[in-house]
Amino acid sequence: MHEPVKVLDVTPRDGLQNEPNPVSTEQKIALIEKLVRAGVTAIQATSFVHPRWVPQMADAEAVAGALSRFPGVRFSALIPNQKGYERAVAAGFHDLELTMAASEAFSHKNLNHSLAAGFEMLGKVSRAAERDKVTLRVGFAMSFHCHFEGTIPTAALVNVVRSARERGPWHIALADTDGMAFPNQISAAVNALQEQLGIAPGELALHVHDTYGRGLANVLAGLQAGIREFDTTTAGLGGCPFCPGASGNLATEDLVALLDGMGYRTGIDMEKLLDAAEFATALSSRPYQAHILRAQRPAACELPRQVS
Amino acid sequence: MHEPVKVLDVTPRDGLQNEPNPVSTEQKIALIEKLVRAGVTAIQATSFVHPRWVPQMADAEAVAGALSRFPGVRFSALIPNQKGYERAVAAGFHDLELTMAASEAFSHKNLNHSLAAGFEMLGKVSRAAERDKVTLRVGFAMSFHCHFEGTIPTAALVNVVRSARERGPWHIALADTDGMAFPNQISAAVNALQEQLGIAPGELALHVHDTYGRGLANVLAGLQAGIREFDTTTAGLGGCPFCPGASGNLATEDLVALLDGMGYRTGIDMEKLLDAAEFATALSSRPYQAHILRAQRPAACELPRQVS
Repeated sequence: MHEPVKVLDVTPRDGLQNEPNPVSTEQKIALIEKLVRAGVTAIQATSFVHPRWVPQMADAEAVAGALSRFPGVRFSALIPNQKGYERAVAAGFHDLELTMAASEAFSHKNLNHSLAAGFEMLGKVSRAAERDKVTLRVGFAMSFHCHFEGTIPTAALVNVVRSARERGPWHIALADTDGMAFPNQISAAVNALQEQLGIAPGELALHVHDTYGRGLANVLAGLQAGIREFDTTTAGLGGCPFCPGASGNLATEDLVALLDGMGYRTGIDMEKLLDAAEFATALSSRPYQAHILRAQRPAACELPRQVS
Repeated sequence: MHEPVKVLDVTPRDGLQNEPNPVSTEQKIALIEKLVRAGVTAIQATSFVHPRWVPQMADAEAVAGALSRFPGVRFSALIPNQKGYERAVAAGFHDLELTMAASEAFSHKNLNHSLAAGFEMLGKVSRAAERDKVTLRVGFAMSFHCHFEGTIPTAALVNVVRSARERGPWHIALADTDGMAFPNQISAAVNALQEQLGIAPGELALHVHDTYGRGLANVLAGLQAGIREFDTTTAGLGGCPFCPGASGNLATEDLVALLDGMGYRTGIDMEKLLDAAEFATALSSRPYQAHILRAQRPAACELPRQVS
């Protein structure tokens, strides 16, 4: 009991990237400050994507510049390509996640390259990362299901992870991007990656969405299979903001409550985390869709509102 | 694979019992008809409680009178005591659930008797049920956590289930009434009941709430432990209607999606179940709080509205 689990809060990146409300750099830093006060020690702070595609991340360098005031916190950034790598390293990040996909169709339509071209780019980024002593994590969007291709067979996931590991010894994040994974897919994937590629569950992270209410069931399957790193967003921000009421990422507070109750150690203080969730909800254009804040502070969830 | 799982839809009883909107007998029967069309074959139709305490169930006899038009469906009713037993049997039910509690405090405050008095009453009801060839299920509210007493230790749950089984060979429903159970409590309870009382997991049902988002994680733990019967409500109706945005029971459609995806067989058609969920949402005084309907038919979830 009391085995540690790493909670990577990705709110400033995944939670806000599609948010239609304007969110200032100051608000992002204020959110990060609340997360740090709650004891969150791993935060994905921003992404170095082209601002034409993701205007909310246009201030990536400004966010990066403010992070030195939070010592002891491991900040990472997301990058889509080599250009993003260069910007992120220039901004001071040593911990980067490169986004790839388990689905050829999603790779083409959302990342603008084929899987093969993606792996070629990963090779180049890997050499640069080894040179610069930067730690990469390779994140596979649509690891279990893709809205273009349907269910991703475990064998197909093993293939793309194999190609990634041929380029470097990087940890792998399996992302349930559309929230349609089932718990038995998680177990099957972790087992296959261990048996066929020798990847220990401790080298994997699970990026969890709760669109279909299966977020914590998938976390449970991940924990049982040995995964000890989970990506979530405070207040469950993220997902598709244009779908009325659509839920997004699994909420950090819902994950932490599960982990606390099951005897895992996160180092996170629930009341302070709920302060962060309240703040994050107020930044969002839609009502709160996750659970703990609604159960414990219902007034904070009633209507979306903009904070000053 | 394709092992059957029993889905007991408790919407007409647990989903509506605290609903502040008036719901007519005709609307209840229309909801039941939609569930039957979707392939639901086990429905808890009403409860025989005093109408002063639960006015929404004042039409229990009228609902019972309409059920003969749905052959092949197993309808049950909830009873709180001997008086309820007599009314339910007179109304034609052969399948009854007697509500008890795993918590002394909850028993006193919500059932108006001590645990000891409850077991004495169960003894009398059991003798009547054996005489009348009525099947009882004993449901334990607050099996895992009680808002008065906190966490219910597994040993305490084993004790009340032992007392119940001393009165009759009845199946047992473990109810996570406040949604605060953790998956490892489910596993521990099922194992302890089997080891200490010889109760097979197939003699247990899990009554699931989703207040903290752990509904499907608890179902997963139940499935892994061998439980094959789950109670849910269409559209997740139930819970506390006076808490703005508070979620209630686990939604039948979210459960069925999980079971379908994991290869279990329920016999339920998802599209027709979503028709029932849309209808149930319209009966409710609050917006839809579950998942599948929101993901697939967002327009049906936008605002609560009364249907004619």
